[in-house]
Amino acid sequence: MERVRTAMAEAGVDALLLSVGPDLPWLIGYQAMASERLTMLVVRADGGGDGRADLVIPAFEVPRVVDRPEVFAVRGWGETDDPIDLVADLVAGADRIAIGDHTWSRFTVALQGALPGASWTAGGTVTGPLRAVKEPEEVARLQAAAAGVDRVATALQKGEIPLIGRTEADVSAELSRRILAEGHAVVNFAIVASGPNAASPHHHAGRRVIEPGEVVLCDFGGTTSEPDGQPGYCSDITRCVHTGPPSAEFAEAYGVLQEAQRRAVEAAVVGASAESVDKVARDHLAQADLDRWFLHRLGHGIGVEEHEDPYLVDGNDVPLVAGNAFSVEPGFYVENRWGARIEDIVIAGDDGPLALNRVTHDLVVVEA
Amino acid sequence: MERVRTAMAEAGVDALLLSVGPDLPWLIGYQAMASERLTMLVVRADGGGDGRADLVIPAFEVPRVVDRPEVFAVRGWGETDDPIDLVADLVAGADRIAIGDHTWSRFTVALQGALPGASWTAGGTVTGPLRAVKEPEEVARLQAAAAGVDRVATALQKGEIPLIGRTEADVSAELSRRILAEGHAVVNFAIVASGPNAASPHHHAGRRVIEPGEVVLCDFGGTTSEPDGQPGYCSDITRCVHTGPPSAEFAEAYGVLQEAQRRAVEAAVVGASAESVDKVARDHLAQADLDRWFLHRLGHGIGVEEHEDPYLVDGNDVPLVAGNAFSVEPGFYVENRWGARIEDIVIAGDDGPLALNRVTHDLVVVEA
Repeated sequence: MERVRTAMAEAGVDALLLSVGPDLPWLIGYQAMASERLTMLVVRADGGGDGRADLVIPAFEVPRVVDRPEVFAVRGWGETDDPIDLVADLVAGADRIAIGDHTWSRFTVALQGALPGASWTAGGTVTGPLRAVKEPEEVARLQAAAAGVDRVATALQKGEIPLIGRTEADVSAELSRRILAEGHAVVNFAIVASGPNAASPHHHAGRRVIEPGEVVLCDFGGTTSEPDGQPGYCSDITRCVHTGPPSAEFAEAYGVLQEAQRRAVEAAVVGASAESVDKVARDHLAQADLDRWFLHRLGHGIGVEEHEDPYLVDGNDVPLVAGNAFSVEPGFYVENRWGARIEDIVIAGDDGPLALNRVTHDLVVVEA
Repeated sequence: MERVRTAMAEAGVDALLLSVGPDLPWLIGYQAMASERLTMLVVRADGGGDGRADLVIPAFEVPRVVDRPEVFAVRGWGETDDPIDLVADLVAGADRIAIGDHTWSRFTVALQGALPGASWTAGGTVTGPLRAVKEPEEVARLQAAAAGVDRVATALQKGEIPLIGRTEADVSAELSRRILAEGHAVVNFAIVASGPNAASPHHHAGRRVIEPGEVVLCDFGGTTSEPDGQPGYCSDITRCVHTGPPSAEFAEAYGVLQEAQRRAVEAAVVGASAESVDKVARDHLAQADLDRWFLHRLGHGIGVEEHEDPYLVDGNDVPLVAGNAFSVEPGFYVENRWGARIEDIVIAGDDGPLALNRVTHDLVVVEA
């Protein structure tokens, strides 16, 4: 909370309002319900009256809050109260207000109506840079999350998850079950894209039946659970397997991708700009004319949220710092033919980049 | 789309911008990914250039869209493009803009910066009243969703879901599995609140082990899946069971609640104000001095979203119309002692109120 108030002061933000999304559990260990009943933490740069933040919350959800009276006061509102008025009163006089990135716009628009004199900015401008630098304890949690999906990827590569003759949706459901069994509370996605479907980076696992002799791209991850039931940290991994031996053409392209991914991880050192790491992968793919099929950025930060700062993308010249956690995931996607992607979560550190995912990057051939 | 444009014109809204949340699938059958990459449907009251809406979407997610070129144009944006600029160009000149209720505020704040001359309102002011009136086809889908959770409730009442000696979390997980097995794509919540925990209306199922001789309040629902994989309609039901015979005191209070719920359903006729239905339940509970423990509104609308218009709450004097779908769910919550709630989904119709949930309201005693 102290670091947040300091960042607010530096950014000239008088009040920070956090509702749904990962900022709130990250800051006070409580996750707001996504609901038309407003939950909102009000943080004032000047500490407000008594130096504490205020958690505005539906009265009957107060029992769900683990009280931390030294950090925030709990202000329950009744079913016929207007929580917008309550928040507006708490930030009266604030010139510049940062509103949590995921806050429902219906509340933002209502608050803007109630506070016509204020100017508004996104809460991520305050919390993003703080969240992007992980404490050692947070790295350990990301490592535990990565180990969980690594075990699922290992099962995939060992052929313990049958593919041929099953639908993508069916395989996706099995991946989801295994992710939950490996200590995640929530599955964020379980992409299974086979054959030509692998050319769609965010393919929705569907009714297509997986055939012999094709690539199966699996990109999956979730959010772990903290011991008190609040959301923890995210995992995210992509591996490709091939049902039977690949063609020489595909194997060659995959080999180039594998080397591009390796080089990009190696380049993700403290002080390198985010965009320079993207460029390393792109330049290597260019040697085989594959860069034109690399349709997305190289990677995204990860933490309590599956995508967060820093983004490894052309145009982002912010240098990496120790404690940044991000994906390195180059791919190629050739419409109506095939696609591939390899993804690890990497930590930038003073001893060099540390890849949290440890399972092989090879294009493993499975027979089942 | 025509009805939306008419409602926009009536509300003086020049442009409607829809992103994450249920409005988008309701209107065009596509659900935006909740992501830092903006997906946004731009609807202009004047039809824009060619009478079509515009779907601004990350280029590599275009393959996921089922094209409907007569309704909307697809405008993919590349990884280094700025989608805010793209949307701002499409609504240039609009004086009043409605932004989808669930849209992430980071996008709203950015759009407000790019369109300094516009005034903003919540998208729900346009879509809410339309969505609140269900077509017969939508009622049929709500009915199918209700039948699914009714079967789960029946299993609970028959004692097929063991309770005594299990944790609430464990029972909640079983309810979730059964909801999915009954044709839902997503579980929205599966509250299991036992003994004194039943006094917290939104209790988070936890590690408490269910004991003999106590109430177990179960409130659960999900969202069905349309054949094309897009989200369908929601279910929501609450039933209480008792592990072994209840005390006379609890049985009596429960009986009053049961009658209050019955009377409220009966009162939910076309033309009655939303608040008057709430009052019917509250007044009946008052006869046994239970109204002071009825901590929340009587109910909420339901459709593609679990909570939507109309809200049955004191202060909402909007009259019910044929096709409104809503929950009727009175309860009482006595701290550190116990609680109870009974909830059905009800359709207001010209032939009177129709309760979609059909399983008994009795306090069923289970022995397992």
